[in-house]
Amino acid sequence: MLKDWTEAQPRLVEVAAGRAPADMVIRGGRWVNVHTREVLDGHDIAIADGRIACILPDASANIGEETQVIEANGRYMIPGLCDAHMHIESGMLTPAGFAAAVIPHGTTTIFHDPHEIANVLGLEGVRLMRDESLIQPISLYTQMPSCAPSAPGLETTGHEITEGEVAQAMGWDGIIGLGEMMNFPGVASGDPQMLAEIAATRAAGKTVGGHYASPDLGRPFAAYVAGGAADDHETTTEEQGIARARQGMGCMMRLGSAWYDVEHQITAITEKGLDPRGFILCTDDSHSGTLVHDGHMNRVVRHAIECGCDPLIAIQMATINTATHFGLERELGSLTPGRRADVILTPDLMTLPIEHVIAQGVLVAESGRLLVDCPQIDWPATARDTVHLGGAVKADDFAVKAKGDNVRVRVIGVVENQAPTRALEAQLPVRDGRIEAEGETCHIALVERHRATGGVTNGFVSGFGYRGRMAVASTVAHDSHHMIVVGTCRDSMAAAANHLAEIGGGVTVFRDGAELATVALPIAGLISDRPAPEVADDAQAVMQAIVDCGCSLNNAYMQHSLLALVVIPELRISDKGIVDVTAFEIVDLTL
Amino acid sequence: MLKDWTEAQPRLVEVAAGRAPADMVIRGGRWVNVHTREVLDGHDIAIADGRIACILPDASANIGEETQVIEANGRYMIPGLCDAHMHIESGMLTPAGFAAAVIPHGTTTIFHDPHEIANVLGLEGVRLMRDESLIQPISLYTQMPSCAPSAPGLETTGHEITEGEVAQAMGWDGIIGLGEMMNFPGVASGDPQMLAEIAATRAAGKTVGGHYASPDLGRPFAAYVAGGAADDHETTTEEQGIARARQGMGCMMRLGSAWYDVEHQITAITEKGLDPRGFILCTDDSHSGTLVHDGHMNRVVRHAIECGCDPLIAIQMATINTATHFGLERELGSLTPGRRADVILTPDLMTLPIEHVIAQGVLVAESGRLLVDCPQIDWPATARDTVHLGGAVKADDFAVKAKGDNVRVRVIGVVENQAPTRALEAQLPVRDGRIEAEGETCHIALVERHRATGGVTNGFVSGFGYRGRMAVASTVAHDSHHMIVVGTCRDSMAAAANHLAEIGGGVTVFRDGAELATVALPIAGLISDRPAPEVADDAQAVMQAIVDCGCSLNNAYMQHSLLALVVIPELRISDKGIVDVTAFEIVDLTL
Repeated sequence: MLKDWTEAQPRLVEVAAGRAPADMVIRGGRWVNVHTREVLDGHDIAIADGRIACILPDASANIGEETQVIEANGRYMIPGLCDAHMHIESGMLTPAGFAAAVIPHGTTTIFHDPHEIANVLGLEGVRLMRDESLIQPISLYTQMPSCAPSAPGLETTGHEITEGEVAQAMGWDGIIGLGEMMNFPGVASGDPQMLAEIAATRAAGKTVGGHYASPDLGRPFAAYVAGGAADDHETTTEEQGIARARQGMGCMMRLGSAWYDVEHQITAITEKGLDPRGFILCTDDSHSGTLVHDGHMNRVVRHAIECGCDPLIAIQMATINTATHFGLERELGSLTPGRRADVILTPDLMTLPIEHVIAQGVLVAESGRLLVDCPQIDWPATARDTVHLGGAVKADDFAVKAKGDNVRVRVIGVVENQAPTRALEAQLPVRDGRIEAEGETCHIALVERHRATGGVTNGFVSGFGYRGRMAVASTVAHDSHHMIVVGTCRDSMAAAANHLAEIGGGVTVFRDGAELATVALPIAGLISDRPAPEVADDAQAVMQAIVDCGCSLNNAYMQHSLLALVVIPELRISDKGIVDVTAFEIVDLTL
Repeated sequence: MLKDWTEAQPRLVEVAAGRAPADMVIRGGRWVNVHTREVLDGHDIAIADGRIACILPDASANIGEETQVIEANGRYMIPGLCDAHMHIESGMLTPAGFAAAVIPHGTTTIFHDPHEIANVLGLEGVRLMRDESLIQPISLYTQMPSCAPSAPGLETTGHEITEGEVAQAMGWDGIIGLGEMMNFPGVASGDPQMLAEIAATRAAGKTVGGHYASPDLGRPFAAYVAGGAADDHETTTEEQGIARARQGMGCMMRLGSAWYDVEHQITAITEKGLDPRGFILCTDDSHSGTLVHDGHMNRVVRHAIECGCDPLIAIQMATINTATHFGLERELGSLTPGRRADVILTPDLMTLPIEHVIAQGVLVAESGRLLVDCPQIDWPATARDTVHLGGAVKADDFAVKAKGDNVRVRVIGVVENQAPTRALEAQLPVRDGRIEAEGETCHIALVERHRATGGVTNGFVSGFGYRGRMAVASTVAHDSHHMIVVGTCRDSMAAAANHLAEIGGGVTVFRDGAELATVALPIAGLISDRPAPEVADDAQAVMQAIVDCGCSLNNAYMQHSLLALVVIPELRISDKGIVDVTAFEIVDLTL
């Protein structure tokens, strides 16, 4: 484990003075200096106890018999990249699996908010994610989730986070601050619990993550800012991003697997010429497929450069800006003495190929190959046994009873490439006293899975384009993560739901009562302890099965997983019923 | 007293939401945004509980019956200025007197290192300075002095600071970090006490002030940086300043009463175009005369602008850069919600006339006039009774006995406008068995004043140009602050020394046995509890008396006060003898 700086200090001085050998010397690189925004040719880095001891033109005096020497050969030496905000659960991986996937891409620091697992397992889930984060070869800082449930009164989560738990977690090692405060109406209206969570974080000297997902830049925004959030990653336009930065918030620009917000905001720097110090890059989400095939923060930095950003500024936005934001500037984020020796060697600053990755003084990846172990904790049975249905589900549980020949119902309208849904209506036939979905309209059901209540909320959804007798079921169902089942056929829906219950959660596609593809997510029904490539393959198979069932939507799986997200308009489903998210109230399914 | 942010938060939200009146509204100003480096016309600032609640185009909803409204009338609203490093004792004032002097100049935050008083009164002196700092209407943060004595073995201070005391002080309210770590050879050589003081500071999450006064940018510098200093204000050239910034240290550029280092370093920004985030403005010293007649941080910012710096960058270097450096970015340094409401109104960003000053939400100065009380603590008798001679000094105490007709002696050679002295020699006559100073050479004596040992070190000094029968005595004698007496005449020297002992310290000039001028400094023999204008007048009278005695040196008083500074070459005087500061050893006076 990495020593605290205070423990390492005496040896760092000895090495820097040239009186002692280093553990590692990186020789002859071009120093990308994120403090002064310069490239300085011809520098060596001497590393001891996982930290940079010195960086100077010639560190050969620090090369002893046991010193590992890495020849930079004129390549650029840049600080390891930082993801300023994200959810590991988005990769369907544990912290270990996530770390293993991103290390070869040059990511050495992650600030992650285990919001999803908190909804299922509560504080204990946060602690488990934190525990595994702390033993990785890179720096994984955990943000204490702030909002479980996200929408009190409109949904029932597996556990609820209290202000007392927030205060308690602030005393834990590895907790860097509060996860995104999504209850922006609550903050702006002075909700005592939300204000207390923020205050507890600030009292601990930690950083409050923000989430203000409204275009209103007037009084509600002012009130939210006054409440104490230190950053926001929900901005999607230049105007909104600049508004955050002007208010002294970190403007976190995200390029996730499903978020493409960098290009719309980076003009604040590339065109408006604003001081970039308050702008920070992050992913927010990263699907395992993206990690395996496209990259992680290297993808984001490269994208920023492609958008016209000076490469040095783009790198600053993924290194020192992030470190400074979280009060870690003396600990990481730059290649300077005392900081964690997180170094990437790359031959080109524009395209950023990641060749060598050193994290905390250890060569952790070379040419895309992971060279170290990312240890897992022993996930307890309580974390692996979280899909509790009230007995096996039957096809008829998904039947909506009605009288007459047909009936007018509310329909959740999925819109391609957009998180908001539309509140639609449809006239559906009634057969044998049951409403039948037809045409573009499918059945949707939310199956309670935390407390085995046997509760099922039924409704209708359109926009997927499913054909045949099929069903998709998922225990990833933001934010309360009950089980969502969408299908054209109640038998397949029941089969899919029961299959997920057997395997402890995941995502599965059934057709004609048989399994087409499944990604198993046995931990909390959200993540897998298998490696990213395997999970990515399974997830890809699920995506293909969804396509095979007739869905042509881009990112259809994401649309599935957000159907219960009762904080984003217009119409959603929860364990409490059909939710009108414009009025924030439960509404009748039939009209 | 200002509430903690956590206490103020609920009301800040109410005001920002427009649901409650503010305590103060500043209306219709041009918002100088130091986050984005922009000027934004037409903004109001609403203030509650001493903090900014919101800043938006129209805060009229926050104007209630009791709300104080200040019309900006299109003037610029800039954050209150911060002095990132200085010694209040340099102004010969207490924290209250200093605050009163600088508030009309727009200074609202000071980071001060009570290093001088620590040498006289030890930790108790630091506590007293801290106590008075905490009750001022502006933000005075105290840095715990790190090096008393500055040169162990070469001088005896009134008290010595231990690593245990440093660790203790880090737990005190109002202690922001460690004062300048001057023992750079000690750090570079791994001196355990110096490393432990730094480690204790870092363990407390606080900022370590640096002081590396050597041109060597090789291994000794690398070792000093590795030791953990976070900044340095001793740089005097562009090369040295840039070297600090590249190593991740704050490069503090000073314009003091006696330091003119900004113009030589600001080219790093104005010509080299480096990222200015790591560059910070400070004064290091500020004589009371400068404060009364020239200004404080407004003078420094204005000077930076005159040197060609973009006014917005110059302001950043005295606001947000400073706040960020000390981990206070969420607390002050910008005009954004939650921060202390420290606001200056000025009609011109180039010349920076300071019209209104608001500190912590209170209008503290207008048109150069102080509007608030700066309360003093009740300085205890122990702090006022610090000049302990071993009985009255006699003229013959200043006699150096010798045999023969003449003798060759070492002479401290004062050099105009330079801190280093020269190690000179002179042939002086011996009369009645005593060496007589003559021509350019004067007597100098260091009279022990902390423990009434009666010890007197005698020597010779040249370069002042004194004529007639005169003497100058001072209990301000960096860093151990014994009493320095320089004179052409032993009778006047004794009279001056005894006068200072009677009044508890200060600086006095005697001619022909009679007092010409005196500035009384009854607290620790270093500072006065009178107002800055009175102290400045007395100090000016002393300067004039020095001129009247034939000295034409620029800043002669400063030269006097540094004659015992045994850390700067070449030749100095201490209670232990004549010190060769090149070899760091005590040497014989006669050759």
